[in-house]
Amino acid sequence: MRWTGESLEMLDQRVLPHSEIWLTLRSWQEVADAIRDMAVRGAPAIGIAAGYGMALAARSSEDLELAAKALFATRPTAVNLGWALERIRGLDERDFAAVEAEAKSIEAEDLAMNESMGRHGAELILPGAGILTICNTGGLATAGHGTALGIIRTAHADGKGIHVYSCETRPRQQGLRLTAYELLYEGIPFHSIADGAVAALMASGNVQCAIAGADRIAANGDTANKIGTFALAVQAHYFGIPFYVAAPSSTFDPALATGKDIPIEERDSQELTHIEGVAVAPAGCPVWNPAFDVTPGERIAAIVTERGIHRPPYHFRSDTFALPETGVAR
Amino acid sequence: MRWTGESLEMLDQRVLPHSEIWLTLRSWQEVADAIRDMAVRGAPAIGIAAGYGMALAARSSEDLELAAKALFATRPTAVNLGWALERIRGLDERDFAAVEAEAKSIEAEDLAMNESMGRHGAELILPGAGILTICNTGGLATAGHGTALGIIRTAHADGKGIHVYSCETRPRQQGLRLTAYELLYEGIPFHSIADGAVAALMASGNVQCAIAGADRIAANGDTANKIGTFALAVQAHYFGIPFYVAAPSSTFDPALATGKDIPIEERDSQELTHIEGVAVAPAGCPVWNPAFDVTPGERIAAIVTERGIHRPPYHFRSDTFALPETGVAR
Repeated sequence: MRWTGESLEMLDQRVLPHSEIWLTLRSWQEVADAIRDMAVRGAPAIGIAAGYGMALAARSSEDLELAAKALFATRPTAVNLGWALERIRGLDERDFAAVEAEAKSIEAEDLAMNESMGRHGAELILPGAGILTICNTGGLATAGHGTALGIIRTAHADGKGIHVYSCETRPRQQGLRLTAYELLYEGIPFHSIADGAVAALMASGNVQCAIAGADRIAANGDTANKIGTFALAVQAHYFGIPFYVAAPSSTFDPALATGKDIPIEERDSQELTHIEGVAVAPAGCPVWNPAFDVTPGERIAAIVTERGIHRPPYHFRSDTFALPETGVAR
Repeated sequence: MRWTGESLEMLDQRVLPHSEIWLTLRSWQEVADAIRDMAVRGAPAIGIAAGYGMALAARSSEDLELAAKALFATRPTAVNLGWALERIRGLDERDFAAVEAEAKSIEAEDLAMNESMGRHGAELILPGAGILTICNTGGLATAGHGTALGIIRTAHADGKGIHVYSCETRPRQQGLRLTAYELLYEGIPFHSIADGAVAALMASGNVQCAIAGADRIAANGDTANKIGTFALAVQAHYFGIPFYVAAPSSTFDPALATGKDIPIEERDSQELTHIEGVAVAPAGCPVWNPAFDVTPGERIAAIVTERGIHRPPYHFRSDTFALPETGVAR
């Protein structure tokens, strides 16, 4: 993402890796569309995009409260969206400079948090480790460096000789499209696998840990993340392989005691039945397509934040992992 | 599949469900190509196709031993292929009628075994059950009725009010393409899901059992089947949901004490990176693509054969589940 002062430019992630198309968004409504249609995805990245959407609203002297509500409604599960909007909606909508500065802060803080997470998380990575990951949690999903992929990046830069296994992540294939794209670019050794190959891979002995990002983490560590994450955690548990989560404090929602109250977005069945616009399923095929699942905190060996490594049992408190308790996100 | 007496006609499963193209195979070499390229797939179906391939060899007075060796080499994991070839290779290659009769027997016996399996297996299905399955194990994978899907068919015909959840089954999407096609045709209520959605589905309480087919079963019940089956079994174990396997006795290889000696076919990376001929992964993306995994016998709550319901611990003996111990399959 690039903020020009009068527009937000972003790489359209729907057409990666085969086309590198930059979108130029000039209104908060265009930003809302880009988030809803997943031209930008990844919990931290949609928070950052929403921040700049608010800056575009302020720039054209629009009602910040109205823009915040509409931006918030685009995607229900990731809490970073509400967190970013909450930071801005109370500002004076006539003060563009203040709104723009806050949006830039959100982005800059995210990058700093990712680098810190990478440093802390790399302590969990053994030399020569095989690391399994899911979805895309890299530079494309954040302000840069990444969450789970940021730890992988740091461990690789430290010369640990790691090897990554990247789940395709159906239905939208963020692993096969975006994570593979980032890993190839960085020269980090890896293989892409089908989501169903996880048990066979773990049984082979080639994986020493699994790491995922997060879209929302409750007070007890229950973690909403891309569909397939809970499956990964269950299989890691069976094979005695540690399963880790990496997320900045903007992803925490300690006002929720457990994950059972996290809203889970269900998306269009065409995400499964069509690929690149081509139907693969028979016409009329019914689909259940939840975008996220919730991994219980007790299945997560450690949660890495910019503050360090947290171990179960988790008790995240609102005074340290704070989403404001009132406002647009409630 | 349709045997005309001088050719084998088969529905090309690579282009289903959108095109119904019948291939006419006039030589054993064409049958070998169809098995290798997966125009026909499913352990019982490739055994049947191989039988008719041998009939085509006998029809043109070709060396049956040579044809058997070449047909056997097409796909290494499913044992039905070796079993069918073993039944025919000892016959007199000048006696086309005898070879043809044996090929027809293999097909007729498979249909009868499937119907018997359906009857036995339906006893495991509770009224109103949600049933999770993987890959395609229906009429397309067998002589008709199906193995795991045959049980589902029988339970549905019995008026049990079941609901099926069908895993997409990447990379080749046999669940999303073929099982969905059969279930729609039969009017059996179902949803297709992404392979990664299994844990979320099981956590929802909507699944009461999981059933898969098999490509080879060792003496201790270790079962090679489509990649993702072991993942399903591990998750079923975590959630306390019974995981069943359905296979005719032609799928057993009791000469193997355990599953560790079952050869696992690795297929081309393009199965994952390309869909309908279109690249979705970045160029140069490395892939690990095993076609099968091996589920340990102790993770299988019951194995259903045409003879009844078998419970662990399994001790399948070569005198009852017999693959001949010598010859092409060794």
